Amino acid sequence: MVNQRMLGLGTARSVIRELFEYGKIRAAQVGAENVFDFSLGNPSVPCPQEVNDTAVRILREQPEVIHCYTSAQGDQEARQRFADSLNRRFGTCYTADQFYITVGAAASLCCVFNGLACPGDEFVVFAPYFPEYKVFIEGAGAKMVLIPPEIEGFQIDFDAFEAAISEHTKSVVVNSPNNPSGVVYSRETLERLSAILTEKSRAYGHPIYLISDEPYREIVFSGFQVPWIPQLYPDTIVCYSFSKSLSLPGERLGYVLVPASVTDSREVYAAVAGAGRSLGYVNAPSLFQQVTSLCCDLTSDLAVYERNAKLLVPALREMGYHCVEPGGAFYLFPRSLEPDDMAFSERAKQFDLLLVPGSGFGAPGHVRIAYCVQTDMIQRALPKFKALADSYR
Amino acid sequence: MVNQRMLGLGTARSVIRELFEYGKIRAAQVGAENVFDFSLGNPSVPCPQEVNDTAVRILREQPEVIHCYTSAQGDQEARQRFADSLNRRFGTCYTADQFYITVGAAASLCCVFNGLACPGDEFVVFAPYFPEYKVFIEGAGAKMVLIPPEIEGFQIDFDAFEAAISEHTKSVVVNSPNNPSGVVYSRETLERLSAILTEKSRAYGHPIYLISDEPYREIVFSGFQVPWIPQLYPDTIVCYSFSKSLSLPGERLGYVLVPASVTDSREVYAAVAGAGRSLGYVNAPSLFQQVTSLCCDLTSDLAVYERNAKLLVPALREMGYHCVEPGGAFYLFPRSLEPDDMAFSERAKQFDLLLVPGSGFGAPGHVRIAYCVQTDMIQRALPKFKALADSYR
Repeated sequence: MVNQRMLGLGTARSVIRELFEYGKIRAAQVGAENVFDFSLGNPSVPCPQEVNDTAVRILREQPEVIHCYTSAQGDQEARQRFADSLNRRFGTCYTADQFYITVGAAASLCCVFNGLACPGDEFVVFAPYFPEYKVFIEGAGAKMVLIPPEIEGFQIDFDAFEAAISEHTKSVVVNSPNNPSGVVYSRETLERLSAILTEKSRAYGHPIYLISDEPYREIVFSGFQVPWIPQLYPDTIVCYSFSKSLSLPGERLGYVLVPASVTDSREVYAAVAGAGRSLGYVNAPSLFQQVTSLCCDLTSDLAVYERNAKLLVPALREMGYHCVEPGGAFYLFPRSLEPDDMAFSERAKQFDLLLVPGSGFGAPGHVRIAYCVQTDMIQRALPKFKALADSYR
Repeated sequence: MVNQRMLGLGTARSVIRELFEYGKIRAAQVGAENVFDFSLGNPSVPCPQEVNDTAVRILREQPEVIHCYTSAQGDQEARQRFADSLNRRFGTCYTADQFYITVGAAASLCCVFNGLACPGDEFVVFAPYFPEYKVFIEGAGAKMVLIPPEIEGFQIDFDAFEAAISEHTKSVVVNSPNNPSGVVYSRETLERLSAILTEKSRAYGHPIYLISDEPYREIVFSGFQVPWIPQLYPDTIVCYSFSKSLSLPGERLGYVLVPASVTDSREVYAAVAGAGRSLGYVNAPSLFQQVTSLCCDLTSDLAVYERNAKLLVPALREMGYHCVEPGGAFYLFPRSLEPDDMAFSERAKQFDLLLVPGSGFGAPGHVRIAYCVQTDMIQRALPKFKALADSYR
């Protein structure tokens, strides 16, 4: 009687959510300090003080106007601030009318997928990948084409990629720094990707848009650089969110940027906005449009994530775990110590380590460690990781 | 190259938006005080002081936790507060797990339409109607079936309604108090609607869900009553928003209530939640989940809308306009003084009166007056309405 796809989506509990719920039950049994929950990507550092101060100031100074509808694409001044900030950082010359403010990263992606997707279109995604991509792409009536992981470095398997591109390819999605691998795509990777997309666009006679999903853009470790992708490939559409950079995941605030360099950029922008309308996104929350745009040059104290990585990676390697070096975000994606990552995740639970199996991210044989946790929890978890490794000897 | 439906939705400017933009240009020419803009349904009274005070208090007292993800259906305590509030008012016994907190009324409707719609399904809507219903229903892959207006009282043309119901009817949408007519459905209307739906559900062997879109529930004038619809028809799904009751349209906060009385209520709820997931609604904004649920027994000072109505309706009738008595909301929907409501709206612009043609609401021969404006603007506008009427003599 109801839509069966939606029923399935609303009924199926994600593996991540199941682990998290298990962790809460287990914590009640053995104490929260004895459960090492690495399941959720919830920022562990608070937003900058200035974010809350700005919110309070606006509520005090503009109590009557701050809660009004904004235009559907977002407040003009807020969009201008986003443009100014990127222009300062990347030497670009974006304008306010290239920004469409959204209810967070998921909304950014949904508006772009729905705005672009025509019947028969394919969207290419690289494993390991954020599993909701599939939900969003299929919700837009398109097909997701998954490229198997390049497991040595979690860059791109270009042979598999080239073979997967066809006349049906509407778009390719990248996410760097990556969830779940923590890896940053190198400039070389992005330049080669750009060259292939340019050639294939020419071969098929239509642009293949690159969708750059960048919620982790600001979380980058020393020695790594995240190139500004639209400068490497002109047909890049940027999806951003302040969930991670300002630790505001619950407030749902992000944007889509359609640079003028994008082929048919005004049509793409209009289609994104039309999709927002069709999906019921009237406008992004008005108070936080102002707050995030006034604070968009700030970040939370993100250094903790690099400290956690620097503690975790060498220790795990010492124990025999194979870890690709993370360059940002707050995830590590080591190989499981047996081929079946589901079984490995189950075994880890015996040591009260909650690790998400990689299969759900399109990369079996791995587990995701979300280390956006207090550093002392990592320190206390290391003996558990050691015991888990020893159990395989 | 882009999705043509989305391009159309993003390119087409709504008549309302065009009038509003015209008003801004005209105001620059003749002064804002000389333009009588009745185009937009933006609340004219501020939110209660307590709303902003509550937001400030939470930002001060819980600066670290308030911005975290909530569960997809919304914070448990917030949902419990919504349930408690309705239970106090209507003597019901709703529970938190029947509420799905949304990013406003449009999101509520989109989640319900997408959760329910199966291929071939039809959703019945009564004219005059909020035009985005069509966008949302078609976005869910279903068909909107429009019942012509019953223009004497803007209740329901039951003959047309009964003739329109078929085995394909999944659901019927009501909106009382109504945008654009301002009319409240009488208990008699709703009881007859319920009787027909009960009979038709039995005849076709499946429930026909009633979707009650209630953003204007609290804006009801003396002498009128808005019955609690789930008590009249058990298969009612309620879509609510705080945009009007708390004057928070920009913050995007509402809910879907699936009472236990609804057939297959847990499946319906799961499908609504699944639709929210597919559409990219991760959770409703976290700060305002708390603020609205802590303030959900309050309203803005809504009395101004009734004062405006009491000023406007008799004056317009005196001038010869035919107005159905509004019972709530902040709209009046008089007949245009010539059959072509587009031409009438154009003529009104000559008197700097901005009135939205009724054709877009499925009721040609009428115009919508959104009187959510300062009362003195109505007083100053009355001579203009008089001159407009005189121009037809």
